[in-house]
Amino acid sequence: MLVALPEVLGRDTAAEIAAALAGAPFGDGKATAHGAARDAKNNQQLDPADPLAQRLGGQVLATLAQHETFKSAALPRTILPLLFARYRPGMGYGPHLDLPVMGTPAGPLRTDLSLTVWLSPKEGYDGGELILTVDDAERIVKCDAGDALLYASSTLHRVAPVTRGERLVAISWIQSLVRDPEERAILHGLALSAATLERDGIGGEAARLRQLQFRLMRRWTEC
Amino acid sequence: MLVALPEVLGRDTAAEIAAALAGAPFGDGKATAHGAARDAKNNQQLDPADPLAQRLGGQVLATLAQHETFKSAALPRTILPLLFARYRPGMGYGPHLDLPVMGTPAGPLRTDLSLTVWLSPKEGYDGGELILTVDDAERIVKCDAGDALLYASSTLHRVAPVTRGERLVAISWIQSLVRDPEERAILHGLALSAATLERDGIGGEAARLRQLQFRLMRRWTEC
Amino acid sequence: MLVALPEVLGRDTAAEIAAALAGAPFGDGKATAHGAARDAKNNQQLDPADPLAQRLGGQVLATLAQHETFKSAALPRTILPLLFARYRPGMGYGPHLDLPVMGTPAGPLRTDLSLTVWLSPKEGYDGGELILTVDDAERIVKCDAGDALLYASSTLHRVAPVTRGERLVAISWIQSLVRDPEERAILHGLALSAATLERDGIGGEAARLRQLQFRLMRRWTEC
Amino acid sequence: MLVALPEVLGRDTAAEIAAALAGAPFGDGKATAHGAARDAKNNQQLDPADPLAQRLGGQVLATLAQHETFKSAALPRTILPLLFARYRPGMGYGPHLDLPVMGTPAGPLRTDLSLTVWLSPKEGYDGGELILTVDDAERIVKCDAGDALLYASSTLHRVAPVTRGERLVAISWIQSLVRDPEERAILHGLALSAATLERDGIGGEAARLRQLQFRLMRRWTEC
Amino acid sequence: MLVALPEVLGRDTAAEIAAALAGAPFGDGKATAHGAARDAKNNQQLDPADPLAQRLGGQVLATLAQHETFKSAALPRTILPLLFARYRPGMGYGPHLDLPVMGTPAGPLRTDLSLTVWLSPKEGYDGGELILTVDDAERIVKCDAGDALLYASSTLHRVAPVTRGERLVAISWIQSLVRDPEERAILHGLALSAATLERDGIGGEAARLRQLQFRLMRRWTEC
Amino acid sequence: MLVALPEVLGRDTAAEIAAALAGAPFGDGKATAHGAARDAKNNQQLDPADPLAQRLGGQVLATLAQHETFKSAALPRTILPLLFARYRPGMGYGPHLDLPVMGTPAGPLRTDLSLTVWLSPKEGYDGGELILTVDDAERIVKCDAGDALLYASSTLHRVAPVTRGERLVAISWIQSLVRDPEERAILHGLALSAATLERDGIGGEAARLRQLQFRLMRRWTEC
Repeated sequence: MLVALPEVLGRDTAAEIAAALAGAPFGDGKATAHGAARDAKNNQQLDPADPLAQRLGGQVLATLAQHETFKSAALPRTILPLLFARYRPGMGYGPHLDLPVMGTPAGPLRTDLSLTVWLSPKEGYDGGELILTVDDAERIVKCDAGDALLYASSTLHRVAPVTRGERLVAISWIQSLVRDPEERAILHGLALSAATLERDGIGGEAARLRQLQFRLMRRWTEC
Repeated sequence: MLVALPEVLGRDTAAEIAAALAGAPFGDGKATAHGAARDAKNNQQLDPADPLAQRLGGQVLATLAQHETFKSAALPRTILPLLFARYRPGMGYGPHLDLPVMGTPAGPLRTDLSLTVWLSPKEGYDGGELILTVDDAERIVKCDAGDALLYASSTLHRVAPVTRGERLVAISWIQSLVRDPEERAILHGLALSAATLERDGIGGEAARLRQLQFRLMRRWTEC
Repeated sequence: MLVALPEVLGRDTAAEIAAALAGAPFGDGKATAHGAARDAKNNQQLDPADPLAQRLGGQVLATLAQHETFKSAALPRTILPLLFARYRPGMGYGPHLDLPVMGTPAGPLRTDLSLTVWLSPKEGYDGGELILTVDDAERIVKCDAGDALLYASSTLHRVAPVTRGERLVAISWIQSLVRDPEERAILHGLALSAATLERDGIGGEAARLRQLQFRLMRRWTEC
Repeated sequence: MLVALPEVLGRDTAAEIAAALAGAPFGDGKATAHGAARDAKNNQQLDPADPLAQRLGGQVLATLAQHETFKSAALPRTILPLLFARYRPGMGYGPHLDLPVMGTPAGPLRTDLSLTVWLSPKEGYDGGELILTVDDAERIVKCDAGDALLYASSTLHRVAPVTRGERLVAISWIQSLVRDPEERAILHGLALSAATLERDGIGGEAARLRQLQFRLMRRWTEC
Repeated sequence: MLVALPEVLGRDTAAEIAAALAGAPFGDGKATAHGAARDAKNNQQLDPADPLAQRLGGQVLATLAQHETFKSAALPRTILPLLFARYRPGMGYGPHLDLPVMGTPAGPLRTDLSLTVWLSPKEGYDGGELILTVDDAERIVKCDAGDALLYASSTLHRVAPVTRGERLVAISWIQSLVRDPEERAILHGLALSAATLERDGIGGEAARLRQLQFRLMRRWTEC
Repeated sequence: MLVALPEVLGRDTAAEIAAALAGAPFGDGKATAHGAARDAKNNQQLDPADPLAQRLGGQVLATLAQHETFKSAALPRTILPLLFARYRPGMGYGPHLDLPVMGTPAGPLRTDLSLTVWLSPKEGYDGGELILTVDDAERIVKCDAGDALLYASSTLHRVAPVTRGERLVAISWIQSLVRDPEERAILHGLALSAATLERDGIGGEAARLRQLQFRLMRRWTEC
């Protein structure tokens, strides 16, 4: 499962956030990595408790909360505070898996979806691709500043070493209202169809699909 | 769950079948009733092994097998051979439950749906209503010759005593490809929407709904 | 799924609450309706943040919390604060579906069950029936002051226009410990049987049923 | 899951079967063992295609098919033809697991339950206990001729070496209508309660339990 | 399901806690028992709101939170505050079932697992065995001071009357991240295998098992 | 879900089969296509009832039945008889979905997996790629003679038009013992780990994994 969210933030907002983070006190990313992932991880992160991280992260979350495709595809129940990560030349993140359950102050969170929001312009660095292994094949992703990608947290993935410039991203994990990726995708499809029919004035079928969407939500939602 | 199937057979075919059964050797219906239902049952049945029962039953099944609403609402995996039942004045069937699993020569059959096909014209008898208890309320059904009703086999139901004339019906039980009534209803709704959009030339959304219908079928079908 | 709860509050308490609400500042009900339901809705509501709404709503909830049938049939995990709604002549609520998930300050809530508590005496108004569509048939409900009705939130329903007098109700939504209506109904049935046997001194079977009820609770409870 | 079935056959019938098998052509039991179990297995078996095996096995199955506790506890969908196995001094069967799916001429069979029917009198041999590992503890079972034991096929188990005399058993595997052991146990409990109440003339509650049993059967039965 | 946790606290810590509790104000245990369990219960308990109970209970919980086998076998989501219970000569607790759902200040808690931590040395009292009924057989458990036992809360169990000395235990209930006992056991097994392979330097298979463990966690975790 | 099965048949066997089919009576492929797929389909097929199709198809199936990766990845319950399809210049198959349930003489079959076996050498034709849409991206597959590909039947897919030469393939659909793709993948992973550890002589962990694999099989197998 992999959903592109182009221009979620837009280039300008991404540039402002990147500028605001330029002098921030980034530390070693290993601090938040578990067991085997610790060896694979070589990047820098801003402490999520840092007031700047909280202010900028809150701004990104507020934008996401208004984004129709994000809401429909992710059906978010809880989104972790954004983590700002920086890769400078020589840095990268070897193949690893995100933990299935993360401890948070509000209790355990199941990581259904991982989110990456790009903050650096594509042409500002070499390397740094996000590479996901899907069905024994690699999907290589390099988005532009202000774009985002949503992908199943169960995916084996890595970040290729940066060889020039700086890769700045904001990342997070989401527990969805709907655990199963296939069920989430079916609900997303139904919502898209209903919205299209509503927009095109085909009210009878749109209403029927909304009812089906609601019935499936009641079967599948965990909250 | 309760789906009316008006004019499945049509009045003429029903009349022909009723005429063909007029002289048939009906026996006591208690023969095929289990435990508590035996006391409640007071009607007459034609032995399903009787060649006439097999020929006429096969004719009804062949008609059903072409009926779009029946197929979509029932998603039949196995339909038991039809049983012809007759209620004469004084006869009826007290409140009872159909067995959840019936033995058949081909192995056990889970009774998801019960089917009644009316063969007598409505005005030809008094009493004989099929009365279903749904959510603590009674649904009283009296269809005309050639109509049918499909209902969840888990429904408590009874046949009111006939006080005049003769009530002739064909009944059967169906194991559906989809066990859960709500899942079956959702698939039926999606199929109706897709068919409507296909008919109205809204091909893009129709195709998307067919894909969703197929994905849900794969999740829910037991075969 | 539809469970009548006669005399939950009793006529006197209902009359006291109605009297206390007589001069309260009711506003337009559209404020809390989503998309398609907004067009259908034409009634008045008291802001749930109003101190009077909170006091009276709390009183109704406290009464419900002691009601054995309510607890056993609903297995409530969370009950939303009561919403007081008023229909005057010309007002009604067209066919609509309740949202499957509602946002609350404590997080999302899945609406398994809808609750209506009648506060106006039956003879005090004309029209205003609650009409539910169940299995393609309509169930028309008009209870008396102090009675309540619990029904599956997935049911398409409407309130017929009031043509004389005033219809005052308190409504709420419930997330049950048990999501599936059939599972909830089975647990309710087992609890009723065990309670009957305990009352009649048939201790051995009562104990066995309690154990079965507990085992099913552990399988089905979401908390 | 472990259910004792004392005196299923009775000592006399067991003795007759044992006598009839005395001169039968038993071969090496390794012939029907898979991978790791092959090393552990050291016994003798009668080819299930042998006409004597078929006749005597059919006799045991016919008796089981009438046994109320067996039917209610196992809810059998398919029972494999009985396999007659013999352990002579020095023979035994080390710790092993039965395969989860066995190929049969009629298609794959999921082994939910294992059945052992003892044919030798308890005092006729030393050793030869059936030892099951349940929750890290051992359950040691040595039944008498004509008794049987039903246990979850997922249980790690072994047969202790025989040190004197002969241990003759008939064994089989069962695919149940209900896959989950806990669900099967709940249905068995409900059936026992309903039967007790029917026997004691407490008809109202018995009828309610039968309806609950039927509703659970429809949810859980695979056929 | 039954997992022994030997030396969770150790004898010395257990002795210190027992000494600290010697003069505490224990009251009648019936105060916290529900319906049928109330008659069966005859012991003494320290009010969980007592500051001493909270301090010592917190110490035990902190130790458990570091215990690898406990964490892997229980996958705890919520652990109730420890309850200290004392049995003096003549006291015991007849056969009873723990409630499937307990009310707590933070909302309902599903009791998946029960925990007993022994605080008295084994030789300091006679009787007082914890006796669990598993598959119609009894498992008799008497651990030493500082040991603990984790068992499925659905197990019928009792405490044999104490005939000499004093039995002091701390007990609690746990809602697991994984509801189903079999699923929990499978995850525990996978974690043990992965840890063994990691320790033995068989990294490739260890990594594969961790990925499988994570995928199963995502399917089964409720949080 | 997508599993490559290189050299399932081998080039020589593929060449022999292709030669044997050279003069066979291929007809229009539309004959076996349903609704929307009929318009998209433009190829030629050999009637599966043709004796040559049956003989050669049986030979391919017999080879597959011995192939460890195929068996472990597909966990086949039923494999449909192979269908031989031929694409000549100008032929192709537009985007389509395979039906979720296909009627067969032995009853309905749920299509979990689709299988393509290539019979033409890669260099013998231009175009004719199998193109699958996975997560909004296209996977383009062109295997060599004797190779096979297994993929989820729910995948939208197409065959690019052939522009030179001939593309000959054998295709089939499989109902797996395990419906869910993720569950099947987890079982496949466990089987691979257990086999590796058995081969490397790490018997203890191999045995533990086999037991876990068997327990998961019992939970997930449908037969």
